[in-house]
Parts: sequence; structure tokens; C-alpha cells
Amino acid sequence: MITLASDFGSPYPAAMKGVLLERTDSATRLVDLTHELPRGDVRSSAFWLREILPYVPPAIHLVVVDPGVGTDRRAIVVNAGDHRLVGPDNGVLLPVARRLVGNAEQHSDIESADDPAADVEAYVVDESALETPVPTGGKAEAAGSTTFHGRDVFAPIAAALEETSQSLETLPWLSPLSEPIDCRLPTAATDGDTADATVLAVDDFGNVITNVPGRFLEGVDRVLVDDERVPVGETFASVERGEPVALVGSHGYVELDVNDGRGSEAFGLFVDEHVTLERLESP
Amino acid sequence: MITLASDFGSPYPAAMKGVLLERTDSATRLVDLTHELPRGDVRSSAFWLREILPYVPPAIHLVVVDPGVGTDRRAIVVNAGDHRLVGPDNGVLLPVARRLVGNAEQHSDIESADDPAADVEAYVVDESALETPVPTGGKAEAAGSTTFHGRDVFAPIAAALEETSQSLETLPWLSPLSEPIDCRLPTAATDGDTADATVLAVDDFGNVITNVPGRFLEGVDRVLVDDERVPVGETFASVERGEPVALVGSHGYVELDVNDGRGSEAFGLFVDEHVTLERLESP
Amino acid sequence: MITLASDFGSPYPAAMKGVLLERTDSATRLVDLTHELPRGDVRSSAFWLREILPYVPPAIHLVVVDPGVGTDRRAIVVNAGDHRLVGPDNGVLLPVARRLVGNAEQHSDIESADDPAADVEAYVVDESALETPVPTGGKAEAAGSTTFHGRDVFAPIAAALEETSQSLETLPWLSPLSEPIDCRLPTAATDGDTADATVLAVDDFGNVITNVPGRFLEGVDRVLVDDERVPVGETFASVERGEPVALVGSHGYVELDVNDGRGSEAFGLFVDEHVTLERLESP
Repeated sequence: MITLASDFGSPYPAAMKGVLLERTDSATRLVDLTHELPRGDVRSSAFWLREILPYVPPAIHLVVVDPGVGTDRRAIVVNAGDHRLVGPDNGVLLPVARRLVGNAEQHSDIESADDPAADVEAYVVDESALETPVPTGGKAEAAGSTTFHGRDVFAPIAAALEETSQSLETLPWLSPLSEPIDCRLPTAATDGDTADATVLAVDDFGNVITNVPGRFLEGVDRVLVDDERVPVGETFASVERGEPVALVGSHGYVELDVNDGRGSEAFGLFVDEHVTLERLESP
Repeated sequence: MITLASDFGSPYPAAMKGVLLERTDSATRLVDLTHELPRGDVRSSAFWLREILPYVPPAIHLVVVDPGVGTDRRAIVVNAGDHRLVGPDNGVLLPVARRLVGNAEQHSDIESADDPAADVEAYVVDESALETPVPTGGKAEAAGSTTFHGRDVFAPIAAALEETSQSLETLPWLSPLSEPIDCRLPTAATDGDTADATVLAVDDFGNVITNVPGRFLEGVDRVLVDDERVPVGETFASVERGEPVALVGSHGYVELDVNDGRGSEAFGLFVDEHVTLERLESP
Repeated sequence: MITLASDFGSPYPAAMKGVLLERTDSATRLVDLTHELPRGDVRSSAFWLREILPYVPPAIHLVVVDPGVGTDRRAIVVNAGDHRLVGPDNGVLLPVARRLVGNAEQHSDIESADDPAADVEAYVVDESALETPVPTGGKAEAAGSTTFHGRDVFAPIAAALEETSQSLETLPWLSPLSEPIDCRLPTAATDGDTADATVLAVDDFGNVITNVPGRFLEGVDRVLVDDERVPVGETFASVERGEPVALVGSHGYVELDVNDGRGSEAFGLFVDEHVTLERLESP
């Protein structure tokens, strides 16, 4: 099985999928996870991958969020438990890789938004050993682009991994990489009843996902979000339609949402921005 | 086969799909129908499902349009002919379920926009009997969210149905539900040459789909839409580009469209709004 | 294998996919390529198909970009090498068909943006010989629409081709068509250091894809785009974030891009528009 995740939108995933179909057995399962990762945003994409891939069975995960495409940034393969991740060496693969090799005990404390360093094995790919896709009736010049490595580099790597039964250590076109570029998700600074938070992501519904662990909301029914008093709820529908609510979202963090509305717009908060949360005693 | 339909956009369908992959046989077919149902709009989503699923072979249909997620609204399974529908008990499954158990004769009269009551069997799900998905390396706190039942409740139900050969009546975690919450699509009030219509949906092209049966347009070449005279056509191209046209759409209802443009904007009509149509004698 | 490409957005592909599932063997692979082709834009869609399908293994390719749906434009099947294309007779299938039967030598000169005429075999479909999809519990009136031939005409054709082992010449519902409607991609007029270009497409990243062959940029590090001096780069990251760059894109043509921004907006250039490029001597 090969899963696909990118920030490509449409139609670029089509050619990438074509290369996978061309180079794998006809019984190989291809699963589009998303092609709407935050465009060119390595850290927020890393957050999403970390929240998605742990629910997916072991597979080869082709990940392309690659603002440095065509530069000297390397193509890497990361081994994480039974999962293999393929993508650029820009940090996007690391948070999810750490999560995949972790275990529930290690993470029972989520004061830290990121996972501890763990036995993630990374390999750098010798791209010259891979055959570049040549389209049917194609112009020689179109092969091996500098701007579409999803099609020309990463899909060939994923297909080659899918088709081989060799272990990563023995593949001649992989070399161990001791220090892949990392990307750490920022940890909220909490001090008693106050948290200095960062927005990790804004989802498609406009929900603002902070890096404050959900337990921060325990025992209070109201929080101060910067200067705004916001009720704490269990669900979106804990408040009237159009009203703001702070709740523990599906990722385990404090979210700032609006019932049937867009929290991001209501709070004026976007990815990477800072926000202060304060627990308010019940009146 | 499990089909997926939701109002999630991206990337939430990915985690839901992961749970399905994790819990079903590797040969199980998963089919993304759409994840762009009208967000949080139960009735308009119900319309779309009713127009889509009758074209799909019998399957387990996972449907998540769930503005009440996390409240005490129940998770249900609806048996409709050879199809099984899984989703929230908010009415979104009922119009399509009635359609799936209906037959062409019953519906040859579409004066009513909705289908007659029919033998739809519904079951309420005992969620406590289902195993909540726990992600690899996951934080205990992230399991069993109040805001993402697509991943934590509905996908597990769909997977369990796919994997069992038992009939619904014998599954210990299902109990018959005599009155699932219903959602009726509004019927247009027609009085001779006049119809008091409601907009059931606006499609991606901006076409305004009313609840007026297509036969309303028979024998006239012009209608009055509120105060605007609009030609009746057979196709979009019956009028010049940019011009409005009333036609019988692919759902059998009167649509208000613009050739190569957006009817919704041209007519100023959106979902759930009312509009009056009047048949005009040929000049 | 059947691939799907359309300008439908969502949710119309769902019903089309339902018809394919209903009418093909359960082991048939269905691959969504894209449903975001430029809406109603035959020429730009033809460009994208030509850049995508040569990377996809031989298959039946269902293509629906059909602004003339319901008029007397015909449904056709085009045989191109081992690929079979199904769609409307409006030219959208021809550029990719020519490409698929071409070969690298023929195309090593890409001065022409389009491919030479080639042995593309086209057939017109006798639609009356096809069974129109009738939905479960469906209203008779809904069958055989004038506005949704993706569901009612093209999907049935694709499914019938997938299910037959007969050659196209022997299928009774196909007749040879000597002159399918063509669509030629415009060729840039180049005169030494100047190119009079047309925008073939704007991609999801906002990159402006012209019809000027990439070699035009060889040996210069700056071009004049209408009146603006723009650096020539190898990659997006050749310039600072937010800065414009001209480069050879993944299709082999000169692209006008912005690093981490939208070239289309920065240059004010959209599909089909003209732009003049001039090679500037290094200062």
C-alpha cells in the first residue's frame, strides 16, 4: 500500500499517481489521504501528518510538501516502526516518524507538543540511481524537472520501495543519514492558569488548533483568550450557533472554535500566531 | 464496499479512511464519493445523497454531516434495500433511504419533492460496545473525541458492518429504532401556472436546483422567476454564454442556470431560499 | 482500469463513479485523476490531459469537460496507442491522443506547442444503443438528462469498453469518425530573442505556464516579461520569497512564477492571455 499526501491541490497529483500506477504491481493499493496540506508550510503539514498517519495501517507514505524543490535539499526515506515515509529532507516527516515509533506510555504526558527523540532511521536517496519517468510520446526535455519532484523523484522512490522485498539497509541507492533536518512543533509555555500558546493549524472548518494540552481546560467553564472571555464546552453545540467556544479538540489540544462558524475569523488567529489563554475561576 | 461521504473537506477524511483501512480486510473497496457536502447543512446534504446513492451498487455508505457531533444525538444504521447507511441520527440518511427502498412506479409522480414513507429499518448503535480507534504511539487523551465521530464512532461502525456476516437484527450492538429523526425535503406549492419553490441545492457550477418538478416547464418557452423573464431551454447552450436559462436538470427538477456562468449569483438565490416561478404563455 | 477526469468539482463525480461501479466487474480499478480541470475551458483542459495521461499506464480514460452538454455535439471514443479516451467531440481529447501515439524523436523539437497530426483513430458513439442508467427507486424523468452526460452517457460508454474484449472496429455502437473536432494548442511565435507567447494554463500554485519552449531561457539570466525585468532561475527558490522568477517548468515550457507566491497575480496573467518575452543580455 502506498498513501499519498501533498500540498498540490489539483491536478498535479494525477501525474504522480500515474507514475505509481506505471511502476507498481496492478494489485498495489494507492490511497489518497489529502492533497490539501497547508501549501508550502512544512510545520503545519507536519502537524497534520502526525495526526493522520497513526490511524493508517503500516504502508509506504509518499509525502510531498516541498517548498525547496529543485534545490540541494535531499530526498529521504524514513523508517518508523512498520511505516516507511518518503519525502523531502525538510523536517516534514520527522514529527510523525517520532510519533509512529513512540508508545502510549511515553506520550501520556503531552505537556510537550512534540514527541521525544526516538529511534527514527533516516536514509538519503541517491537520486541518480533512480530512473526518471519518461512520459509516453514525451519530450526528452520534460523529463527530470526541477519543479515537480513529486512526479520525477518521490513517486519513483515510493514505487521502488513498494516493489522491493529488500530491507532499507541493503538497498544500494539508500545511505544512512544520521541527522535528517528536523521540525519541532512548538510547546506551549504554561504557568499555572496561563498558557502562552501557538496556533499549530487551522482546519477546514476554521477551527483554531493550539498547542495547549486539553487538560488545561479541566475544571473551568470559561477561559480568557487574549482579552476575550470564552465559554469552555464539550462540543461545538455547547454554545449557540455563531458563538465562540473553547474545547478539547480531536487531537487532544485546546481548540478555539465557533459553533457553525469559523473560529479563525472570529478570533483573528492564523497558523503560527501566538495567543494567550487564561483559566478563569467560575463566577 | 464502503463508500464515504462527508462535509469534511480536507484533511479529516484521511484519518477516517485510515480507521477503515485498519479495521477491514485488505481487499475491501473504499470509494470516496464526496467530502464536499454542504457544510453542516443536513437537508441539502440529504438531497445530494438521495441523488447520488441510487446510482451506486449496494454497499455500506458512511455518511458524516454532523453539526451535533458530541451531543446526545445518536449514531444509527439504516437498512435500505441492499444498502446500509451509517451516520448520525439527524435526518440526513432518511430521504435517500426512502428513495433506495422505493420503486419507479411509486415515484412516477414527483409532485412531491420527497418520497413517501417506506420500509426503512433503523437501528441505534450502542457506541460503548465499539472499540475506539487508538492511534499508533497515540496519546490516550486523543482517543474518543467529542468532535470527530467520523473517525472515532462512524468509521468503526462501518468497518464492523463490513466485517460481519450477521444480519443487522442479530448484532448485539444494534437495537431497533422505531422513529429515527427525519428530514423531509420541502415540496413546491404549485397552483396552475405558478409554483412557490424552495432552493434544494446550489451545485458547484452555481446552478440553482429548485424543488419544482421538471414537467412544470412543459409547453412554455419562458418563465417568470420572481420578476425576471427567463427563457426555457433544453441545455445550458440553449442560450448565449452569460445568459440565464430555466431547464429540467439532471435531478428532474427545474433549475435556474446561466450558460457558462453562475445561476446562483445571477438570480441571487441560495440554498433554502424561496422563489416564485410562473409559466408564461408564448408571446 | 478506468481513469476519471472532469471539471465537475464535487459532488457530481460521485454519481458518475456509481455508474462505473454498477456496470463493471468488482475488480475493475477506478482512478480519480482530477475533477478540477479548468471549468468549461476545453483548450486548457486539453493541455492538462496531455501533460498527465502520458504518465499513466494504458487504460480507458473517461474525460468530461463538456460545455456543450445536451446539444448535438457527439460522444466519441478515441484510440491512441493502448489508451482509449472517452469524451465529448469538442477537441478536448485530441492533443493528448496525438501525444500518446507520438514518440520522443518526433517531439524532440518542441518549437511547436502542439504535436503533429498522427494516427489517432476516432469513433462516434451511437448513444441510442447504450442503456441509460436508471437509479434505484428512480423517477423515470430523471433518467437520460440533457445536462449530465458524464453520468448518463460517458460513464456507460467507459464501462461498456472496460467490459468488452472486442476491438473498437467491431463494436456495433461505434462508427469510424474521420474528422473529430480538433483543438490545437497555440504555438509561440519566436523571433530570435523575442517570443510572442500565450498562457496555456495557470496551475493551482498560480504558476503561469506559457507556450514558449524552455530552451528559450538558455544562456540568459534575465528576461523581459512585457515591461518587467525578471530573473531566470532553476527553481522557485532561486529567488527570495515573494519574488518573481522565470524558469523551465515541469512541462518543458517557460513558466512565470513567484517563489512562495502566485505568479498569475503578480504578473496579471491568466489563461489564454498573450505576453511578450524577451531574452536580455547579461548586464
